Amino acid sequence: MAGKEIIECVPNISEGRRTDVIDAITRPLYAIEGIKVLNVAPDPDHNRTVITMIGNRDSLKEAVLKLYEETIPRIDLRHHEGEHPRAGAVDVVPFVPIEGIDMAACVELAREVGRLVAEKFDIPVYLYAEAATRRERESLPAIRKGQFEGWFEKINQPGWEPDFGPRRVHPTAGITVIGARMPLIAYNINLNTDNLEIADQIARAIRFSSGGLRYIQAKGMMMHERNLAQVSMNVVNYQKTPLHRVFELVRAEARRYGVTIHSSEIVGLVPLEALLEAVRYYLQVHDLQREQILEEEIRSSLEE
Amino acid sequence: MAGKEIIECVPNISEGRRTDVIDAITRPLYAIEGIKVLNVAPDPDHNRTVITMIGNRDSLKEAVLKLYEETIPRIDLRHHEGEHPRAGAVDVVPFVPIEGIDMAACVELAREVGRLVAEKFDIPVYLYAEAATRRERESLPAIRKGQFEGWFEKINQPGWEPDFGPRRVHPTAGITVIGARMPLIAYNINLNTDNLEIADQIARAIRFSSGGLRYIQAKGMMMHERNLAQVSMNVVNYQKTPLHRVFELVRAEARRYGVTIHSSEIVGLVPLEALLEAVRYYLQVHDLQREQILEEEIRSSLEE
Repeated sequence: MAGKEIIECVPNISEGRRTDVIDAITRPLYAIEGIKVLNVAPDPDHNRTVITMIGNRDSLKEAVLKLYEETIPRIDLRHHEGEHPRAGAVDVVPFVPIEGIDMAACVELAREVGRLVAEKFDIPVYLYAEAATRRERESLPAIRKGQFEGWFEKINQPGWEPDFGPRRVHPTAGITVIGARMPLIAYNINLNTDNLEIADQIARAIRFSSGGLRYIQAKGMMMHERNLAQVSMNVVNYQKTPLHRVFELVRAEARRYGVTIHSSEIVGLVPLEALLEAVRYYLQVHDLQREQILEEEIRSSLEE
Repeated sequence: MAGKEIIECVPNISEGRRTDVIDAITRPLYAIEGIKVLNVAPDPDHNRTVITMIGNRDSLKEAVLKLYEETIPRIDLRHHEGEHPRAGAVDVVPFVPIEGIDMAACVELAREVGRLVAEKFDIPVYLYAEAATRRERESLPAIRKGQFEGWFEKINQPGWEPDFGPRRVHPTAGITVIGARMPLIAYNINLNTDNLEIADQIARAIRFSSGGLRYIQAKGMMMHERNLAQVSMNVVNYQKTPLHRVFELVRAEARRYGVTIHSSEIVGLVPLEALLEAVRYYLQVHDLQREQILEEEIRSSLEE
């Protein structure tokens, strides 16, 4: 796989119930050359489907345009209900650099796709995360705030002109958000206490929104089955806020309550580099490189 | 690569100077279907060449037999000199399970190859490491002790009958050692001191031979360039003696001298699992699985 360009793209569409609609929207993606659809995850409660696919720049450009083409006529947000906030039929489309490509190139891709989507579908496009053109648009919740219904007014407020497309909410498809970001890590730390208040206090101490680490979202949760309080987190940029720093800061904050860490868990996928960085920190093995991993060496020699 | 069987095989032959001989011995290996030769590393001082190749059971069986066939007529140990101890023209042949195969299967492979080598080449074969048939033969240095010259007497001593083949040293090719082992990790810990004696003391405390951890070989070394003393180690079985345990034990022993750890280094390759285990320990993320690594997931989906 050395040298090959791999980008992950994770569109969220505002339909998680009508399986015929979800099928009609996603089926054409499988036919696009160079695209591999890894997962289609409809959530009926959220009334939202998360699609995970990988490809290179060209194939993903084609796939995302196809996705808008299939989605916009089929989802009418005027009749959409669900637990998850949303402002668009195609609510958000992030591009994630995985291999053989850097963030700058994904930002460029997001902007190009944004321009094409606005042109082709006459819908306002907002760039977010690393592709954002201004600080207030880095945060997806900040853009989505007001949701579909509120956006008819919000779009006329100062500072909310779209990055591309008309300054006019699409009557059925709303707005759409496109951007580039790092892979998220869902990371939870379980505490040796059943006191949820302590987990809440620690979450507040370490998360960005209340003064903590820049790329951490956190809240306190109760794990009822095991009767442990948990600090539940998203690590939004593991390169700039690495796992060990989160872990050690939680440990330090827990100490003031006389609480220790019970265990931690990574939910779902984690980039190899995030694990390597933890090894580098704890074993002080600063020069450890991915190329030193035996399986990587063997794999790349088999691909020669 | 999921499901595919990959074994590493690292024969050491007792010739590191005559490049025509090394070429003649190694060239046929490249032609064997299913074999990938990763590296041929001649060492003129040691007068020894380390060959690294990968393959499955069938292809490696063929490759190793071919290696003996090409080596035995070309290396005459009566005229061999070099710094590295040796007892055979093909001195040692370890099989290392990498992927899609376990140690038990590699032990079986070593024994089968051992039987075939003894039959075909009329040479005494000793099984070592995980394939050893008795405790005293687990250690390669213990078998090699006395070297080619000493083995003519040693072979008649009680307990040194070969596992396969004649109880008679081959006049030019000596004996040969075949076995199965885990991948080695060359792991060094640098101390915040220029006192070599402290590194020596710590090495003695943690290594197997003087009462320490079972799968650790260690010695003190001076890193002259940086003026730091180093505990230089081989981790012979990282599954049973994981890196974090070595690191923390060195830290604990260093404490008695008022010395801290400056840094550590992994020289060459390291199995992914050894790194994952360090992450599990330090982040207390006990359930972390290899399948959670984003790149592995993407890779396996691309191979489907």
